[in-house]
Amino acid sequence: MALWYQPPPTLNLISPTLKLNSLRCNYNCNLSILNSRHTHVPEPEPVFASVKTFAPATVANLGPGFDFLGCTIDSLGDFVSLFADSFVRPKEIAITQISGNAVGKLNRNPLSNCAEIVAIEIMNMPEIRSVGLSLLLKKGLPLGSGLGSSTARAIAVNKVFGEKLRKEELELAGLNLEEKVSSYHADHSLDLKKLNFPEKKDLYFVLVSPKFEAPTKKMRAVLPLEIGMANFVWNSSLAVALAAAVLEGNVAGLGRALSGDRIVKPRQVPLILGMEVVKKTEIEVGAFGCTISRCGKTCGSGRVGGAELTAVAMINCEERRVRIGERMMEAFWREGRLKAVVVVNRLDRVGARLVDSKPR
Amino acid sequence: MALWYQPPPTLNLISPTLKLNSLRCNYNCNLSILNSRHTHVPEPEPVFASVKTFAPATVANLGPGFDFLGCTIDSLGDFVSLFADSFVRPKEIAITQISGNAVGKLNRNPLSNCAEIVAIEIMNMPEIRSVGLSLLLKKGLPLGSGLGSSTARAIAVNKVFGEKLRKEELELAGLNLEEKVSSYHADHSLDLKKLNFPEKKDLYFVLVSPKFEAPTKKMRAVLPLEIGMANFVWNSSLAVALAAAVLEGNVAGLGRALSGDRIVKPRQVPLILGMEVVKKTEIEVGAFGCTISRCGKTCGSGRVGGAELTAVAMINCEERRVRIGERMMEAFWREGRLKAVVVVNRLDRVGARLVDSKPR
Repeated sequence: MALWYQPPPTLNLISPTLKLNSLRCNYNCNLSILNSRHTHVPEPEPVFASVKTFAPATVANLGPGFDFLGCTIDSLGDFVSLFADSFVRPKEIAITQISGNAVGKLNRNPLSNCAEIVAIEIMNMPEIRSVGLSLLLKKGLPLGSGLGSSTARAIAVNKVFGEKLRKEELELAGLNLEEKVSSYHADHSLDLKKLNFPEKKDLYFVLVSPKFEAPTKKMRAVLPLEIGMANFVWNSSLAVALAAAVLEGNVAGLGRALSGDRIVKPRQVPLILGMEVVKKTEIEVGAFGCTISRCGKTCGSGRVGGAELTAVAMINCEERRVRIGERMMEAFWREGRLKAVVVVNRLDRVGARLVDSKPR
Repeated sequence: MALWYQPPPTLNLISPTLKLNSLRCNYNCNLSILNSRHTHVPEPEPVFASVKTFAPATVANLGPGFDFLGCTIDSLGDFVSLFADSFVRPKEIAITQISGNAVGKLNRNPLSNCAEIVAIEIMNMPEIRSVGLSLLLKKGLPLGSGLGSSTARAIAVNKVFGEKLRKEELELAGLNLEEKVSSYHADHSLDLKKLNFPEKKDLYFVLVSPKFEAPTKKMRAVLPLEIGMANFVWNSSLAVALAAAVLEGNVAGLGRALSGDRIVKPRQVPLILGMEVVKKTEIEVGAFGCTISRCGKTCGSGRVGGAELTAVAMINCEERRVRIGERMMEAFWREGRLKAVVVVNRLDRVGARLVDSKPR
């Protein structure tokens, strides 16, 4: 997925209505833009001495929305600080500090780390010639959040240059990125649509991440190449029911839709020790629905080959969160001898944002 | 599809979230109800001397919503008048008059006519023992409306008995019905969800019905048994985009979603002489999108083996309707030497309704 360039403010879906057009269009127009700019376009001056961005964690492949539906979680994500640094070679980004979760786990080889590649792709744009950047990353994700991290960096890099880089250029960077690190490239537009969950209603996510690494390739390998008509109709209408439930703020309906996928999750869940029991447990103890989220391209964790997994349950009140989290942790331990981290957070309604900036 | 029992007030989708549950539940609880009622339940007295119902035409299989998404068209449908008739044998329905379109085309063999079967199934319910009904049908559909007709009858029969028959019982009748006349039985719940198109916005349908009968079996035969993952993701997200566009009143988005199906329509459209050109034409002359609608189970026309077809274009203002209709008619004639009937109507926002009733 190439959601990174623009984080989902609430619940988002990729609108395929523009997919081919925008994808083709982006490639063509951007390549020509790049060529022309190579000679003519003036270099954008950094307009900020430093910027700090936050990108919330993303639950990807939401229920029946495999490869097109995700949402963001409040108060859980990555902070990226970035500043123009004359000690850094032009067009380069030096990661001067990594703090928070997953420290040491991050792969510092730029070509195997989505987040770095996104930033590098942007810095590689011809109009940027003499500026180098220093990057401070604070990982706030104890789980495979998918796309949060690279999103924050892309936004930060763009902010430094006063958002001179156009959406299409960020998209182009994202596409190049995907080709480099992804074993699977869907025909996706980067055009996002937003589904607003009603402001007046509450939606909480119980996120339980076992210490278990599912190899991305194995998780991909169990995906069916072909889907039977009955399951296709079922999942399509389920995805619509999910979207309608979101817009109505119908958490019960959302939960049912979340749990009802017949195509992807039934094949992936058995690969995760204890997950089947965890799913049952969540429903038993009053969650409205349960699914798994994983980092499709390992962008969030910045690791290639392995992806963290998270069991995601939805509830509409805080009371049950402790009990549900505990029961899910117990189930992972009992069934798979897996330790798990539990986080409960609200639905994020803002998305990736600039949290601080200092003008030059 | 089993939409018949309750027509979509505006744009509806079958919510699969309850499918298995409600389907199984309906079967079980109803069968037990029937058994128990067989001995204990008093016969419901007709509370109306006569009732008249209207069921608007239904555009079925809307765009990517194959077998789960449809909408109803204003001022176009079937009228059904029904009255308790002591000259009719108990538990029987006598069709005393058929007028309007498709007269003479209707199959009067109850077992091959959905509409009759629905009514008969209801009359067969054990609690009805001594009442016979006369039915007057006025067909208002020049096109394969799918489900309008049987809906009107089911509602009428129920009205006569003061709506004593429970939704589950009507559903059970619908399920029996489907098994009898359908060559294809999807695992569908009869639970409907409604997607409201904003009241303030206008939505018109240009419905062009060529004099062409596509054999239902042939149209079914071209359906793929298996669907590739990329097309599955595409169509699922397209269906969600369609639902979102409806709720937003975004006619342009709705049109794109309507036209974007990659799985069903691309296989069926070539079977209809001239349809490919008609689709292009509609878009060229300013329609927002185009699809085909056909009567999946031939319930609407009451004919088995053949189903009428309609090219459906969406517009948001009346001005272009004449031009678009004419161009579509021309295309059908030019490409396939097919005469066509054009009807332009608004989206129906009410659904099947009681239009008149006389108390006993």
